[in-house]
Order: sequence, then C-alpha cells, then structure tokens
Amino acid sequence: MKIESIGEFSLIEELSSLLPDGEDVIKGIGDDAAVLKGCRRDSYLLIATDSIAEDIHFRRSSGAYWIGRKSLAVNLSDIAAMGGSPLWAVVNFGIPSELSVQYCRQLYRGIAELAEEFELSVVGGDTFRSPDGIIISVTVVGEVEKKRCVFRDGARPGDVICVTGKLGESSGKHLKFIPRIKEARYLAESFSPSAMIDISDGLFADLDHICRASGVGAVIGEAAIPASPRLRGKSEKVKLRALGSGEEFELLFSLPESEIDDLLSYFVDDTGTAVTPIGKIIDDQGRRELIGRDGKVKPFPESGYTHF
Amino acid sequence: MKIESIGEFSLIEELSSLLPDGEDVIKGIGDDAAVLKGCRRDSYLLIATDSIAEDIHFRRSSGAYWIGRKSLAVNLSDIAAMGGSPLWAVVNFGIPSELSVQYCRQLYRGIAELAEEFELSVVGGDTFRSPDGIIISVTVVGEVEKKRCVFRDGARPGDVICVTGKLGESSGKHLKFIPRIKEARYLAESFSPSAMIDISDGLFADLDHICRASGVGAVIGEAAIPASPRLRGKSEKVKLRALGSGEEFELLFSLPESEIDDLLSYFVDDTGTAVTPIGKIIDDQGRRELIGRDGKVKPFPESGYTHF
Repeated sequence: MKIESIGEFSLIEELSSLLPDGEDVIKGIGDDAAVLKGCRRDSYLLIATDSIAEDIHFRRSSGAYWIGRKSLAVNLSDIAAMGGSPLWAVVNFGIPSELSVQYCRQLYRGIAELAEEFELSVVGGDTFRSPDGIIISVTVVGEVEKKRCVFRDGARPGDVICVTGKLGESSGKHLKFIPRIKEARYLAESFSPSAMIDISDGLFADLDHICRASGVGAVIGEAAIPASPRLRGKSEKVKLRALGSGEEFELLFSLPESEIDDLLSYFVDDTGTAVTPIGKIIDDQGRRELIGRDGKVKPFPESGYTHF
Repeated sequence: MKIESIGEFSLIEELSSLLPDGEDVIKGIGDDAAVLKGCRRDSYLLIATDSIAEDIHFRRSSGAYWIGRKSLAVNLSDIAAMGGSPLWAVVNFGIPSELSVQYCRQLYRGIAELAEEFELSVVGGDTFRSPDGIIISVTVVGEVEKKRCVFRDGARPGDVICVTGKLGESSGKHLKFIPRIKEARYLAESFSPSAMIDISDGLFADLDHICRASGVGAVIGEAAIPASPRLRGKSEKVKLRALGSGEEFELLFSLPESEIDDLLSYFVDDTGTAVTPIGKIIDDQGRRELIGRDGKVKPFPESGYTHF
C-alpha cells in the first residue's frame, strides 16, 4: 500500500501507536512538543523535533543562512506553542556531496545567530552525506513551569480564539519568521491560555487540531482574521486561501472570555506584536464554522497541503 | 571549496566553533553525547543524536525492521559511552514517496521493540517526504549521575585500555548489534573508567579520539585485540583491517590499572559480555603504537573511512 493512499496523518497516527510510552511522559506524540516529567520539580522538560528537506520545505537558492535559521526556528515555534523556553538544540545535517564548505558555513551561521538571539546552546549534532538534497533535522529541548504549560487539548466552550500577527504572509516570510517565544512566554505568564498551537499546517487545519484534541467545535469570523496588507485588492477566494496557508508560524490560542479585555489592552504594547480575537470555541465537537463577510455560514476550507 | 578537500572532521570542527555554548553546557559537541546541567541536582542530562541514510549507512533490502532498530541503537550506544541510561527518543523519518506503508510499519516496529527492551519512551517525531532514499535521524535524551558520567577526555598515563566483545564483526552485525547500555552502567557503577567511547569510527580512530581529547598517547598489542572467530584463517592484513573497522559499537575505555584484576574477575560473569585489556595509555601525546604479532612496533593503521 502506498502512503498517499492512506494519507500522512493516518500514517503518523498508526506509526505513533506502535511506539512505547512511559509513565514519565505527560504528553508524547500529538502536541507541538513532547512534555516530560523528571527534570526540576516544578517544571516539565519539552522536546520538539522537525526536519526540513530541500525542494520540499525550501529551495537551495533561497540562501543558506535563511535555510539554517529556519531549521531551528520551526522548532522554537513548537516550544513557544507549549508556553516554554528553549534550552538546547542538536542539529543533524545531511549534506549532498557537491555542496560547498562556504554554503555549510552560512547555513550554520543562520542556526548560530538565531540560537544566540533566543539564548539557547547548540550542543551536538551529526553531519552525514545525503544521497540527494540538503536535509536538516533539528531537535530542541526546552523547559516550561508546570503551571504554565499550554497543551492543545484544553480549549473550553466559550473561550475566545486568538491569533498573533497577520496571516497570509507565509509565502514571503516562511524562511524569515520570528518564532513567537517572547509572545508565548508573556501569554503564559500573564494570562491563562487554555490551548495553543503554532500555525504550521494552516489556520483552519491547526484550529481543527485544537478542536479534535479538546473535544470542542469552533466558529470564526472571516472578516476578523488579521490579513496581511499583501492581500489587499486580491479576490475573496485568493485571500481566503492565503489566510489558511501553512507555515505562518503565528500562535493560535484560546483564552477565557474574562481575560480578553486585558489581553487587548496590554499584549501589543508589552510584546510589540499584534493579537486578534477571531472567533469562539463552542460545545458542538462536530462544528467548524466560518462566518463569511456576507454573513453566510460556511464550513472551514480544506487546507489541501499534504507531503505525500 | 568542496567538503572532500577539507575533510569531514575539519568541517565538523569548523562548524561546531560557530555555534553558541551556554554555562549550563558541561560538554557540547565533541563527545558521544552532550552533557548538560539543569535537571536533577545530582545528575546530568545527556543528548545524543545520529542520522542514518540509505545507501550510505544501510541498504533498503537489509530489512525495514533492522534499519529502524539501528537508527535508535546507534544513539543508545552513544548514551552508553557516557555511562548513562536512555529516557526518551524522538524520530525524524524521511520517507521516499514510493515507500510502502508496510515498510514504514516494520521500520517503526524495529524502533519500538528496541525502545521497550531498554525501557525508553519514543515521545515525538516528524515524518517528511525525502527527495531520494530513506533518512532517519533519531535524538535520544538520557541521564547519568554526575559522579558516574564518563567523558572522552579523562584517560591518564598508566590506565589500561579495554574493549568489550569481539571486533571484526561489523560487516555482519552493524545492523543487529546490542547497544552496550547494561555493560556501561555496570562499569560506571562498579569501577572508575577514566574515559570511554563507543567504537563507531573504528578501534584505532576512536582510540585516537580518546587520546586527543585526553592529551595522552596509547600503545596496544595486536595479539591482544579480541578478534571475531569469523577472522580465523584470514591473512594478517585482512584481519588488521577488520579489527579497525567502524560500526562495531563495542565500548572502548580506559581504567586505572588497580581495577583491572577485579574487572577481569567479575565483568563477564556479571554482564554476560567479554572484556579484554588491549594496551596502555602513555604520557607521550604524539604516540599511537601498535605492537605487532612479531613484536615489531608500528603506527596505528589508517581507518580510511570518510563520508565525503
């Protein structure tokens, strides 16, 4: 059987079910990062891991520096989505034999500068010859206070759904985004987000992940979604597709309604990043509704992207 | 500049020097695993990471189960080389689009069964489409009591050099080896190994790593090296090359001379694995001597293997 015939998510689910899980595992596969007992008494250890491959996640011509930076940034985004801080990273770098030393240097510079910016140490790695194309797999270990760890599965009916930044920019910024560590820490320290995820699969797909994990539904208003100025003048269809695209790396979270006024009063001033309420968590697990600009209710658009 | 022109070890050294290191890092790049402060007060956290790629580290036809198993086993071998125990693993799995679901399942079964055997949890991962060939990058997080952590750089003149198991079997067992976790823990708990490494680059290359890190030299006796029965009847030249081959995944360590009698009395009974003294650590940093079967002194043979 070919993988495309069962789909990537089913494959991951099936493979995950084969793997053993111990009692020190608070959350294994199925959130942005694994959450583990056994470090400091009041903290969890977090492990996030992600790979990027040439011609699938980036083109070689996009620049070695930015490709290296992205390989780390996607993992920092996952640590942020748990409310945590990164501590250490390891890098597995598959190098096609024709790649120049200069290219490798630039790529590592991209990793190193982002690591310095977010004060984590790169503590190990492996370089190997890749049969075809650059492959970078990065694993980041981080930490979060137990009481501040934000899972995907805590969204409750009545919570407000919010998103940081503006959406529809991923085609421009998917290599250059700033992982929302600072914003997530601020949120976890000053508010009580009930569920959080970073937008990597797309707004609608990632909100669906939160809903499934939490056993709830969601209604969002199309006009409320903060759109990039790049989308001005585009047709409604193009705009909607762009708003749902993957690799935005913004935070998508739910928050008790009682905290929304304070969030809107302080978040942007304290973090320098915009935050926008876009909808509500509802009780009905099956419902995923988008209220269009014309007031008509429609289902979430299909995100469509799949690796296989 | 092409990578082959500067060599893999120089590339790794140069790239490593670009990466930032914090004060919670006891040992970053340059040992079998990274050693980190910040977990339990009397323990270090360990992070090992390693990738295996099709047609470089294995052939697809060798069997999905064994390939999956190996991707985890090489990392357990690194955790063992620090004297530690594995806790958690994450798996990055690059899947060529033509690979069958059945193959993926078998590969994960190989990972899962080894994880169960060594009581660690597989807590996360990423699957992605690989442009060409299977690529598996595994990261293992482990733990070791501070006083039992064994680095590469502690070998002292007068220490006896020992190796577990028999060498010259890597062509047969490089996929099926048993990571020496049990043996390493026994050693770290009952003896005082001064330096340790797992044999992945080859006996002579890995002993050279210990010597460089520790600032010492080494003399070993060719006749003392425990040879696989497979090598019987082979020419001296073939035998010597096999004894120095990579991917043996046995432990190579140095031990104070005062502990050797006890080691030889108890190790094999307590672990079920052979241990053999093969030489001595000496003061002269530059010396790497092999005393041949004819009593003549020669330099270490070149290991020869390089990825680029």
